[in-house]
Amino acid sequence: MGLVVQKYGGSSVADAEGIKRVAKRIVEAKKNGNQVVVVVSAMGDTTDELIDLAEQVSPMPAGREFDMLLTAGERISMALLAMAIKNLGHEAQSFTGSQAGVITDSVHNKARIIDVTPGRIRESLDKGNIAIVAGFQGVSQDKKDITTLGRGGSDTTAVALAAALDAEVCEIYTDVDGVFTADPRVVKKAKKIDWISFEDMLELAASGSKVLLHRCVEYARRYNIPIHVRSSFSGLQGTWVSSEPIGDKQVEQAIISGVAHDTSEAKITVVGVPDKPGEAAAIFRAIADAEINIDMVVQNVSAASTGLTDISFTLPKTEGRKAIDALEKSRAGIGFDSLRYDDQIGKISLVGAGMKTNPGVTASFFEALSDAGVNIELISTSEIRISVVTRADDVPEAVRAVHTAFGLDSDSDEAVVYGGTGR
Amino acid sequence: MGLVVQKYGGSSVADAEGIKRVAKRIVEAKKNGNQVVVVVSAMGDTTDELIDLAEQVSPMPAGREFDMLLTAGERISMALLAMAIKNLGHEAQSFTGSQAGVITDSVHNKARIIDVTPGRIRESLDKGNIAIVAGFQGVSQDKKDITTLGRGGSDTTAVALAAALDAEVCEIYTDVDGVFTADPRVVKKAKKIDWISFEDMLELAASGSKVLLHRCVEYARRYNIPIHVRSSFSGLQGTWVSSEPIGDKQVEQAIISGVAHDTSEAKITVVGVPDKPGEAAAIFRAIADAEINIDMVVQNVSAASTGLTDISFTLPKTEGRKAIDALEKSRAGIGFDSLRYDDQIGKISLVGAGMKTNPGVTASFFEALSDAGVNIELISTSEIRISVVTRADDVPEAVRAVHTAFGLDSDSDEAVVYGGTGR
Repeated sequence: MGLVVQKYGGSSVADAEGIKRVAKRIVEAKKNGNQVVVVVSAMGDTTDELIDLAEQVSPMPAGREFDMLLTAGERISMALLAMAIKNLGHEAQSFTGSQAGVITDSVHNKARIIDVTPGRIRESLDKGNIAIVAGFQGVSQDKKDITTLGRGGSDTTAVALAAALDAEVCEIYTDVDGVFTADPRVVKKAKKIDWISFEDMLELAASGSKVLLHRCVEYARRYNIPIHVRSSFSGLQGTWVSSEPIGDKQVEQAIISGVAHDTSEAKITVVGVPDKPGEAAAIFRAIADAEINIDMVVQNVSAASTGLTDISFTLPKTEGRKAIDALEKSRAGIGFDSLRYDDQIGKISLVGAGMKTNPGVTASFFEALSDAGVNIELISTSEIRISVVTRADDVPEAVRAVHTAFGLDSDSDEAVVYGGTGR
Repeated sequence: MGLVVQKYGGSSVADAEGIKRVAKRIVEAKKNGNQVVVVVSAMGDTTDELIDLAEQVSPMPAGREFDMLLTAGERISMALLAMAIKNLGHEAQSFTGSQAGVITDSVHNKARIIDVTPGRIRESLDKGNIAIVAGFQGVSQDKKDITTLGRGGSDTTAVALAAALDAEVCEIYTDVDGVFTADPRVVKKAKKIDWISFEDMLELAASGSKVLLHRCVEYARRYNIPIHVRSSFSGLQGTWVSSEPIGDKQVEQAIISGVAHDTSEAKITVVGVPDKPGEAAAIFRAIADAEINIDMVVQNVSAASTGLTDISFTLPKTEGRKAIDALEKSRAGIGFDSLRYDDQIGKISLVGAGMKTNPGVTASFFEALSDAGVNIELISTSEIRISVVTRADDVPEAVRAVHTAFGLDSDSDEAVVYGGTGR
């Protein structure tokens, strides 16, 4: 008998009908002879409604209390889901993150899981129950306070439980059919990927693909837990994410896994930086001290006549204001002429382990962009990824051009997209 | 420095404005030099909305999951209240029933508190925080499952915490100004009671007064915790409930505390019962086995000619169907002619410790009813209470007549009643 962890996002349990539909799917997995652990998010818009309430009583809600508030959402959905399952004649018990043994650090609103001690879950499963666990939440190791894991937290809960329970698979049910070779809203001919390696999935997630978050994939890779991303609406086979293709799926690793894009970043250019040791370090120390994560970094070739250079980097638009403030404050110490801020950029990334052994990939990528008339502003590469920054307006056309150039286009329009995303 | 426990019902925290108003009141108590523990119910209609959801997914929601669901309501209100207090510049921390050490038995939906271990609350108070505790909920001693305390549970939480923390007073904030000599919706000239003994309050609660539940008063009496019932809207002094009048309040015990009424009961008459030992026992064993609580019991004088008698008793209307079924099932064993069910009855009770030493009270009570043309169907008495059953239609008139006859009428129409009741 296998152990399966299933995770359902907020859009899958948005109302009573959704909860009943999900309950049937869970019972099916149980009837197939599995022990089943289910991780569930808050219903539909519950979390947003709670955030609204918080903003009405306090402009800056405190972390500890904010977490206490938000975790009410999963408490509702998990209890209702357990009731719905019992109503189908199967035994189910719901558990809070704390009861399920999800131990975190004390960083409220974005805590990290540091241990999982699922004794009560194991006990409940051994009694023949289906165990329902609140996603997105845990309890802090030192203070025993309720914490939340931040965006995408429920996926991480599911993978962490799967690892602690040595599950055969962690099934992430969502509102799309799986991971696609590109965003189907942009590329109509995007294909569902049957299997993708952890490494390629990590690069896609880091490059703007929203189906799985980087952190969740990282966790799954560390503990080698296969993830199966699939739709809670269609019931079709989705995308397997694992170190090796699973079972009889003799899938050959594709040269290119997919094309990701991201228009959530902005670009800051520090103009007229003296070209001498320590200058770049001073700039990025100022940014790091403001607790801002940056993405791409490019330094121009220094102009010999002036001894000055420009340094550009990208970062989330939401951090733009903070970064400019931090740099302006350190201006005297660093010594630069001016700052340029540009939030009309987009990033297109080509991801695939095959590019390591296929030297023509970079050239083909740039040719495809050039043929589409797209100008490249920055370039950054890893072993299995090439990313470029372009004008934001050029992104859809660029993604389609690259997708076609690498032979990723599907013959049919098979992509089905449903509204909303879970957390 | 004193320790005060305050409890706010759902109508006091129905929306963001209510939460902010309550937060100000709490901060005032803190500024007055007290350590403050606040017990809070779910916001307004939250609990009803959650019950609706449960009914949509399952016609018979399981106890454990139902409790898990309902406790989400207090989690929301307490977190918001803590945020609102912090926004006023004071430190506050919220605690679930489990975190606050409210230990209960395992009877879901109507658990009883068996211990309170408020270590974390004490610690939080000692750090200068205001502690906010979820009412109505606890954790079961044996299974560590979330439980709820049933109707009026938040009041019980407040009194239990006050006892465990050795508080000076437990303030129950509600939407009326205190306990009245009669229901102000029925008797316009009802007066607010300044002080009432635990014993009289227990009788009033058992007789239909809804301001405090019997269970909460019982708990307060056992641990001798003074309760101050007052309005969260007006800020006026309310009603003190304690063993002796508090401080400089040299209130003389009134002969009569008040008149309560109750139209939630029905009457069952078992007709033609053989007048021999064991018959009454057999009837009430059948009722008890069906887990039905009964209130008044009267046995008619046996008619010598037939050797048969009638036995009448009252019980909550909601249990009527179940009681009839239980009796019909035991009909052969008990041996009676027929059953009469009557749910158009009302109960009027006069409560006051003074009646022990004032022999005329019973006579005056019956005279007042007679003068008002009210027919008496059943009578039951305790040392400090007389109750009669009448037609339901007669109740308002009967209550007013008795209230006037015992000199309880106020000179002014001071009663102020606000909508809704907390849980």
